[in-house]
Amino acid sequence: MLETSVLKHIAKLQQKKYRKEFGEFFVEGIKGVSEALDSEFEVIAVIVDSNVREEEKIQKIIRTAEEIEVEVMFASAKDVEAIKSTETFPGIMAIVEIPEMSLDDLDTESHIIALDGITDPGNLGTIIRTADWFGITNILLGPGCVELYNEKVVRSTMGSVFHENVVFTHDLEKSLEELREESGYTIASLELQGDPLGKMEKKKKYVFVFGSESHGVSEDIQKQVDARYTIPGKGQAESLNVAIAAGIVMKEIS
Amino acid sequence: MLETSVLKHIAKLQQKKYRKEFGEFFVEGIKGVSEALDSEFEVIAVIVDSNVREEEKIQKIIRTAEEIEVEVMFASAKDVEAIKSTETFPGIMAIVEIPEMSLDDLDTESHIIALDGITDPGNLGTIIRTADWFGITNILLGPGCVELYNEKVVRSTMGSVFHENVVFTHDLEKSLEELREESGYTIASLELQGDPLGKMEKKKKYVFVFGSESHGVSEDIQKQVDARYTIPGKGQAESLNVAIAAGIVMKEIS
Repeated sequence: MLETSVLKHIAKLQQKKYRKEFGEFFVEGIKGVSEALDSEFEVIAVIVDSNVREEEKIQKIIRTAEEIEVEVMFASAKDVEAIKSTETFPGIMAIVEIPEMSLDDLDTESHIIALDGITDPGNLGTIIRTADWFGITNILLGPGCVELYNEKVVRSTMGSVFHENVVFTHDLEKSLEELREESGYTIASLELQGDPLGKMEKKKKYVFVFGSESHGVSEDIQKQVDARYTIPGKGQAESLNVAIAAGIVMKEIS
Repeated sequence: MLETSVLKHIAKLQQKKYRKEFGEFFVEGIKGVSEALDSEFEVIAVIVDSNVREEEKIQKIIRTAEEIEVEVMFASAKDVEAIKSTETFPGIMAIVEIPEMSLDDLDTESHIIALDGITDPGNLGTIIRTADWFGITNILLGPGCVELYNEKVVRSTMGSVFHENVVFTHDLEKSLEELREESGYTIASLELQGDPLGKMEKKKKYVFVFGSESHGVSEDIQKQVDARYTIPGKGQAESLNVAIAAGIVMKEIS
């Protein structure tokens, strides 16, 4: 059984303000918890549903946690009821420290995906997962984006949140300018009106900016963009989903 | 104000069994309703929140509906409370007849996207929207897929459900065989192990099969596949989201 203070702590981590206050977030499920333990993130505790503690995959995670001296706690059925954030609690979760990241943490020898006003958690998570697939490790989040440690975002990254350098900037415009001036990046964006993606020059260092589905790349950010591209379509749809568009661009530049 | 029978009817359409029984579904929002009215689908009624009836875009839809003799009904604030399926009812909805479609309705001179066990509504809707963007009008749904007229699917197509030939088959294996034998299609699938997508031959008539995120293309269907492709990755993610993968493939074949 978990102590009441632990239960309250976990419940609070479902709210953004407490994640910020505590500097912690949580990840659920075998895959997510395993990836957290294997990563450079600091895992504060692993919480296991007592009912599944004997399962082989869970046992393996418990051993890994113990090896690196991460506390493992067991939750009763009643605890599980209290803490689950999804309808089907996947039996295991971890509380993880939010790393402090700045522009200096980006690998400035490779591409960067910059996101301006991506508010849908599923889209943000999927973009991070896709970047990880294509080996693009740098993500730059502008101020209008959904919070990275929102549980829906974390879930839809499918563990990739632990592989990526995700850096938050309060001033995306200034960050783009810095990346161009100091690190030699070309700033490109995806727009409904632009050159066909097929005409994009091969470069080693693009910052590729994607704007919100409803408003596109914001005006201030537009000023920093060196090249605008579009994914040519020939059907009747007005636009592509932003995660799909980002996936197509990442395949092209990777 | 809406009659109680109408309110009950709409409430029922939020359930799959009644959509099937009545042969009707609903679409919400200005874009969805406009696309429905402009399409070959039969719109049974348009329902407008009385509070927004004077808005210009709503007025335009009302005129369109009246021109083609579609009934327009007005909902009171209380009605809206009763019928809304999302937290923010977008002020307008339409009840639409489910068209009867069979394999014969596919345009067998162009590509077909076949889906095997796509259970996530957002993924199905996004795949349909993306197909529409790339001008691929044929979608074939196998028995394990989420229902096309689920409101989350309809919403995430962003109106593209009204542009596409979406055909449901009870026997995907047999349908694939028929498409190969009778219409000269090559059946291809996306797998984690396959030839790199870049090596895919240019052909005018692919049926491209995408399997479920958790189990991939099912064994029975595999038997019908002539060519297997993969999207090469170099990061640490285990897989791509299926809608992203489908988007990348559709861009390649279109």
